[in-house]
Amino acid sequence: MADLSGVQQAVLWYPPSYDIRVESIPIPKIQDPDDAIIKITLAGLCGSDLHIYRGHDAVKESMVCGHEFIGEVLALGANFKSQGQTNRPALYSSLKVGDKVVSPFTVSCGECHFCRIGFTCRCPSGRLFGSPSTPGGQAQYVRVPKAGGTLYSLSGAGDFWSRSSQTNVNARPELADSSLLLMCDILPTGVFAAFQALNHPKMLPMSTGLPFPASSFRADGLNGSEKLGSEDTILTIAVIGLGPVGLCACISLLDMLATCQMTFRVVAVDLVEARREKMKAVYAVIDPSGKGTGEFIVASADESREIVQKWTDGMGCNCVLEVVGHNSALTLAYDLVRPFGTITSVGVHGASQMPFTGRQLYAKNISFDFGRCPVRAMFPMALELLVKRQDVFGDVGKETSLVDKIVGFNEAAKSYEEFDKGKVGKVLFDPWK
Amino acid sequence: MADLSGVQQAVLWYPPSYDIRVESIPIPKIQDPDDAIIKITLAGLCGSDLHIYRGHDAVKESMVCGHEFIGEVLALGANFKSQGQTNRPALYSSLKVGDKVVSPFTVSCGECHFCRIGFTCRCPSGRLFGSPSTPGGQAQYVRVPKAGGTLYSLSGAGDFWSRSSQTNVNARPELADSSLLLMCDILPTGVFAAFQALNHPKMLPMSTGLPFPASSFRADGLNGSEKLGSEDTILTIAVIGLGPVGLCACISLLDMLATCQMTFRVVAVDLVEARREKMKAVYAVIDPSGKGTGEFIVASADESREIVQKWTDGMGCNCVLEVVGHNSALTLAYDLVRPFGTITSVGVHGASQMPFTGRQLYAKNISFDFGRCPVRAMFPMALELLVKRQDVFGDVGKETSLVDKIVGFNEAAKSYEEFDKGKVGKVLFDPWK
Repeated sequence: MADLSGVQQAVLWYPPSYDIRVESIPIPKIQDPDDAIIKITLAGLCGSDLHIYRGHDAVKESMVCGHEFIGEVLALGANFKSQGQTNRPALYSSLKVGDKVVSPFTVSCGECHFCRIGFTCRCPSGRLFGSPSTPGGQAQYVRVPKAGGTLYSLSGAGDFWSRSSQTNVNARPELADSSLLLMCDILPTGVFAAFQALNHPKMLPMSTGLPFPASSFRADGLNGSEKLGSEDTILTIAVIGLGPVGLCACISLLDMLATCQMTFRVVAVDLVEARREKMKAVYAVIDPSGKGTGEFIVASADESREIVQKWTDGMGCNCVLEVVGHNSALTLAYDLVRPFGTITSVGVHGASQMPFTGRQLYAKNISFDFGRCPVRAMFPMALELLVKRQDVFGDVGKETSLVDKIVGFNEAAKSYEEFDKGKVGKVLFDPWK
Repeated sequence: MADLSGVQQAVLWYPPSYDIRVESIPIPKIQDPDDAIIKITLAGLCGSDLHIYRGHDAVKESMVCGHEFIGEVLALGANFKSQGQTNRPALYSSLKVGDKVVSPFTVSCGECHFCRIGFTCRCPSGRLFGSPSTPGGQAQYVRVPKAGGTLYSLSGAGDFWSRSSQTNVNARPELADSSLLLMCDILPTGVFAAFQALNHPKMLPMSTGLPFPASSFRADGLNGSEKLGSEDTILTIAVIGLGPVGLCACISLLDMLATCQMTFRVVAVDLVEARREKMKAVYAVIDPSGKGTGEFIVASADESREIVQKWTDGMGCNCVLEVVGHNSALTLAYDLVRPFGTITSVGVHGASQMPFTGRQLYAKNISFDFGRCPVRAMFPMALELLVKRQDVFGDVGKETSLVDKIVGFNEAAKSYEEFDKGKVGKVLFDPWK
């Protein structure tokens, strides 16, 4: 049994706001037979950590930050045993001390209705790492509740590679830890945003070539219509927010549009020039010829209004991906979207009232999808993209890479500050550096 | 050419509110070559007329009310001619004086992108009958703009029966005018609400038996899951608002659930006892055995909370249909819906701010579909249901019929008052009575 009696270094947030300290605290212990203790290899700093950082969540106690981490198993609770687990998630039988694991940013039991149907982030046993009740992963060690349902193993039988047999992953590629860390939250969340938007029934006339409602489930010609012409099936899309999740959303969206051979126009919007420059650099890698089946433009908010106006002769976007988590982004999304358009919001929103009247929403027949990515359910689809786009996900520190740098905890406070101000993109922590 | 020089009787609303008068006004004239003048046979009083009636829309001039009407063609503009119309909607070639027609409650050109893809109610040339710019159908005559795109002909070639060749309508059933009048708005709107709710991607795990995201477009087993068990695929649904549109939504929903052989639990909610009693009477007709593949309970708001709590062990409804158009209904919908649930709102909402914070919507992964029914596009599906359920749509004045009574304009003011107070259900006007 591992020695859990010592202390570790961890990144703590102190109320009321903007106060990050690295401290020595006890190594967590097994509290429940479903627990695992993970020795952390890498931890991420994520845009939604900034809500806590800025004091928006009215948390009153200090806490260990971070909901993105990968590592290896140091200790397991009594429910992990090789026999007699037929009705429980496979990891309760197969996970071993020393196995390499990735954790989604929320706990999910893997056994309830929500987990079974794929809405894993709303498991009633769910918890968010890096919240007052659940110490986070910006530490040397973390306790993972319901670990047999929550974790993905990168070792041994039943791991996530073997689940990807239908993908273009034929071997087990060697992926760097910095690449795998993106699987905890930001890459699946970006894929979720793009997937939700393109799969909304209001997009189906464009993707099926059949008018509503025939597009939805009855291709029986009840609408009396021929197939739509090409001028009716162009998709115009805006992505608002080009932080790390927004970048992932754009990369995923462009991949899905290319796969489906859709004709598209995408405008990617951010207020911060550095983020726009990063997006342009990434796009230059993923579509070096710029000759896909569509157009892709990076723009400021004001520019985006003009671009969409011009592209669509005033109609607006078919869908808008909102990857910010602020009312100003929702308002821009409303302005940019056309009647019968859809707004997919994966931004983490706070206590502000929705900035819309009922009349505004009725008058434009708006659809919304709000909320958190079920990372566990999106894992296979996100993994496929991770492998496919190692050209941007695999590198660290280049102008074209998604991860800007890997630093030690000694740079934690500074990194929060710079990330908060948009001066740096994705930062990872190596707790042992 | 018809004589359009005389006067007619019409129901007018006067500002600021609650002021309905029957007056003599000029018969409308052709103003544009795409116009038709219709002699009205029957006109409906609809729940959304009450927004104007109550003065919520801040209209400052008197106007002719009503957006539901059927009738026959009295005069046609110059663009209706039997030759040289190959690029225009068929009615510009085929419609004749004397033809019987049904009108959707909004004008749609039939020629723009929105009309082509089936989102007809957001045609840029769209207008709402019974609004300040477009005199309504509670009159003896009405002018229909873009009539070749807007109207449905019940006579001659290319009429709506011939479009329904794939349905169970094999002959042309004789439908009473009171039955056809429901096609202008309330029946298609009810079908639209049910259709949108059941076709939302968040319902697909329940209807396909595959977990998200495999349920949406990839049944390739990427999720590594077997088919879901029956306990995971029960649909729990609430319908809030049992006015005439709400009744149509329930009838449509029950029909779709039966067709798909889904196991379901539906609670139908209204504050007004008379509406709940009407719903019970209608349900007794459409499922006389009470032995469908699910449960159906009519309840007050408070009762609905308890019922859903008990049915779902606190999870909540998979989807909620909001057919009221008031923030109290949206709030109840939020309370009743489960995480990853969807709220489909066809209620006509006013100037109130949405009663939700971003955090509430994020925390429950809520999806919304707001807005007006594209009646023209929903016509075939609604017509199928109209024919199938003549047992409730075909009768007038029975406890079990959807239309309560047909009155003359001399009862217009009284009918508005009674309808506003929930004392009467669907009322139709015969302008010649």
